[in-house]
Amino acid sequence: MTSQFSPDGRLRHLLSLDGLNGKTITSLLDQAQALRANALGGTALRQTLAGKTVCTLFFEPSTRTRSSFQLAAQRLGADLLGFDVLASSAKKGESALDTLRNLEAMGVDAFVVRMAEDGAAAALAAGAKPGTVLINGGDGRSNHPTQGLLDMLTLRQRKGTDFSRLKVVIVGDVKHSRVARSDLHALRALGAGEIRVCGPQSLLPDASVTAGCRVFADLDEAVQGVDAVMMLRLQRERMDEGLVPSLDEYFRQYGLTSERLANAAADAIVMHPGPMNRGVEIADAVADGPQSVILDQVGNGVAVRMAVMKALLSP
Amino acid sequence: MTSQFSPDGRLRHLLSLDGLNGKTITSLLDQAQALRANALGGTALRQTLAGKTVCTLFFEPSTRTRSSFQLAAQRLGADLLGFDVLASSAKKGESALDTLRNLEAMGVDAFVVRMAEDGAAAALAAGAKPGTVLINGGDGRSNHPTQGLLDMLTLRQRKGTDFSRLKVVIVGDVKHSRVARSDLHALRALGAGEIRVCGPQSLLPDASVTAGCRVFADLDEAVQGVDAVMMLRLQRERMDEGLVPSLDEYFRQYGLTSERLANAAADAIVMHPGPMNRGVEIADAVADGPQSVILDQVGNGVAVRMAVMKALLSP
Amino acid sequence: MTSQFSPDGRLRHLLSLDGLNGKTITSLLDQAQALRANALGGTALRQTLAGKTVCTLFFEPSTRTRSSFQLAAQRLGADLLGFDVLASSAKKGESALDTLRNLEAMGVDAFVVRMAEDGAAAALAAGAKPGTVLINGGDGRSNHPTQGLLDMLTLRQRKGTDFSRLKVVIVGDVKHSRVARSDLHALRALGAGEIRVCGPQSLLPDASVTAGCRVFADLDEAVQGVDAVMMLRLQRERMDEGLVPSLDEYFRQYGLTSERLANAAADAIVMHPGPMNRGVEIADAVADGPQSVILDQVGNGVAVRMAVMKALLSP
Repeated sequence: MTSQFSPDGRLRHLLSLDGLNGKTITSLLDQAQALRANALGGTALRQTLAGKTVCTLFFEPSTRTRSSFQLAAQRLGADLLGFDVLASSAKKGESALDTLRNLEAMGVDAFVVRMAEDGAAAALAAGAKPGTVLINGGDGRSNHPTQGLLDMLTLRQRKGTDFSRLKVVIVGDVKHSRVARSDLHALRALGAGEIRVCGPQSLLPDASVTAGCRVFADLDEAVQGVDAVMMLRLQRERMDEGLVPSLDEYFRQYGLTSERLANAAADAIVMHPGPMNRGVEIADAVADGPQSVILDQVGNGVAVRMAVMKALLSP
Repeated sequence: MTSQFSPDGRLRHLLSLDGLNGKTITSLLDQAQALRANALGGTALRQTLAGKTVCTLFFEPSTRTRSSFQLAAQRLGADLLGFDVLASSAKKGESALDTLRNLEAMGVDAFVVRMAEDGAAAALAAGAKPGTVLINGGDGRSNHPTQGLLDMLTLRQRKGTDFSRLKVVIVGDVKHSRVARSDLHALRALGAGEIRVCGPQSLLPDASVTAGCRVFADLDEAVQGVDAVMMLRLQRERMDEGLVPSLDEYFRQYGLTSERLANAAADAIVMHPGPMNRGVEIADAVADGPQSVILDQVGNGVAVRMAVMKALLSP
Repeated sequence: MTSQFSPDGRLRHLLSLDGLNGKTITSLLDQAQALRANALGGTALRQTLAGKTVCTLFFEPSTRTRSSFQLAAQRLGADLLGFDVLASSAKKGESALDTLRNLEAMGVDAFVVRMAEDGAAAALAAGAKPGTVLINGGDGRSNHPTQGLLDMLTLRQRKGTDFSRLKVVIVGDVKHSRVARSDLHALRALGAGEIRVCGPQSLLPDASVTAGCRVFADLDEAVQGVDAVMMLRLQRERMDEGLVPSLDEYFRQYGLTSERLANAAADAIVMHPGPMNRGVEIADAVADGPQSVILDQVGNGVAVRMAVMKALLSP
């Protein structure tokens, strides 16, 4: 697998939070926080990536992530190229790597890539030119590093920078979630006090993924005293696959309701990467309630992506 | 229903021309006219919405309206985010309101919304944050306010500002037309001298919609002496629904030909919101003839949308 | 057919390389080369098309060409409007010419058009307003003039400006290829020393297309001593049409392998317009080998398109 670091130890791509230490993550969060404070900046900010071209290369549908990266790139003054997979040469059978090499030859400096296959972003990075930057916008069930970063930024804004005092629980379809994996990497790197994972047996990953975590089957127990509840989206196809009996039954056992949330710390926050399945993994009252920081996460997403692009493209 | 006015009476959204008085409409038209005169402006114009983000949120296909808004936003210097419904989380079952809230959290300042459901733009406005601007780009058969404004601007350019001297006829599928409803609101607000409506019984709306209008079944009579003929597009599905016997028969009875147009005032103008069904509701000779102002309408559309965005976002 | 020249002999559109003389082509290549040398330019370059609007109007899918034009327009500072045919009024049955006239009325200054019908770009040019610029991004099997220009720029960079010393072979589905036709026009205009064409009988065009060329059925003979091998893409549908027995058999007879390439001049270059069918018309070892200039072509594409837009829009 391609290293995301250059030989001198500098971050060259952002492929995974696996392997990033607390210092690197903290530095990115600090930059994101500074950008958030002045999110729309002024003329100076617009010059940050002037003359650079950022291409979103998405092979899966996405609202948040793609739009978030597009806005981040625009606000830094980059030229933007959107690659629409449906209207593209993908139809003509060209490989993703040939597509990337062509766009590279046209002067694209950085690619934000989303693909269904695990390791796809790293594979593209391995084939890219020396100066090209790859940012993983989600690959299979493996990585979604900017989501992990924005989740950490949100936690830090609400709970302070000392992660060792935090109890966090990740709830739902951990097995198939790239968000969960990126969050786990980041929480470990930042030294979170206690990491819990909760879901039905059929949706829990191998023990290697949850190493060092406390694993719960019962959500009421899992949320006891936590500072943050990080909900995951339940893909509806899990039902077709027989991994979940029904959406109603899932909600009954793993849906976050106000009653269940009352077992967490009084000032616990509720997070969700979106898009939400209201009434499946989360109740409306919680999603829109006072402890929800879900829209904060979205706002932080733009700032984190600006910070990542700035760090990689204008170091 | 959400008011499009703030408590102090200022226009906050543009959801409908229903409820806008002549003074407000005239003020928007004056601004559009000034922008039209200097449509591509200079550097100053580009600064108008610098740092603002406009998102087109279209759930129905559209050429004119969407492109027109995009160009208007660009020419005012706004950042632009295009939301492609087919490649989006809409597939994942997220509600339009959750989508809007997420984009809002990313820093979108204004949304141009087109949706199939009546009242959809107003519903989104009701759920939006206090500072967010909603512009209705067409909802169901209810409203298409910028089309109404651009039609008025076109009328005014050709016929002067005194609408009390004007006789205007709206022809075709009035029943299903949001364009007709917006035109009717605007013509009344501006005090048009005589408003006529013409179409087959099956395509005429409830009497409440045409209150104060003269209603005709016969097109030859309806165009007698009018200053402007505003044609409507016939959706082909009206035939499948049995509301129209055939396209040929429709053209025979309600198609605007040069012969029919000869019954109008000698200097009458012909309007159409597009896209035209040539040979269905309008003959080529009329569409491309000397009395057609159809492309003027299109040009005015950009100016009107610039004026609306400027008024709402940079008041 | 519409002339692409204005009455005073100035190039007004770029519809075809047919009819362009060597001097005109050379002038465009010179400008492209200058832009390539300073491809991302500075603030001055960004002012070249400031206030101009370029619309890509693509009725066929495309990666390279569309993205290439978009990047070229952005780097010259033009406003960009992308017309997505699937999400457009094309669905509503509007003609391409009505679409163009509408976009023109909105202030679009130049259109880059790709259409499936031969002569479609010229037909649009015939219906456009006097000041509007049409750039053919590919029509049917007839023309792809910017591809022809970028191929010439690539040849010139590697082989010098004296085309009379060059032996060039075009290989593959010449019959259905607009790239081949544009290359043939350009090679003739620049006075190429020897032009060869090679492909199975079923994929060779009428003799009028290959007038003045040496035609080969055998690829080993055709590449003997040439300075450049210009491969064409084989559309997979040729197999369904019975024009090619199988992809394997095609590769055996017409695929460019290292062994075959060894028959060309020692410093021969290999070109391909992309997207490549690896293992069908070209072997991986050749596509990615030291004689391949395929990615140079892609980079030259942006420069050529910048030069064309600059010449037509900012003369």
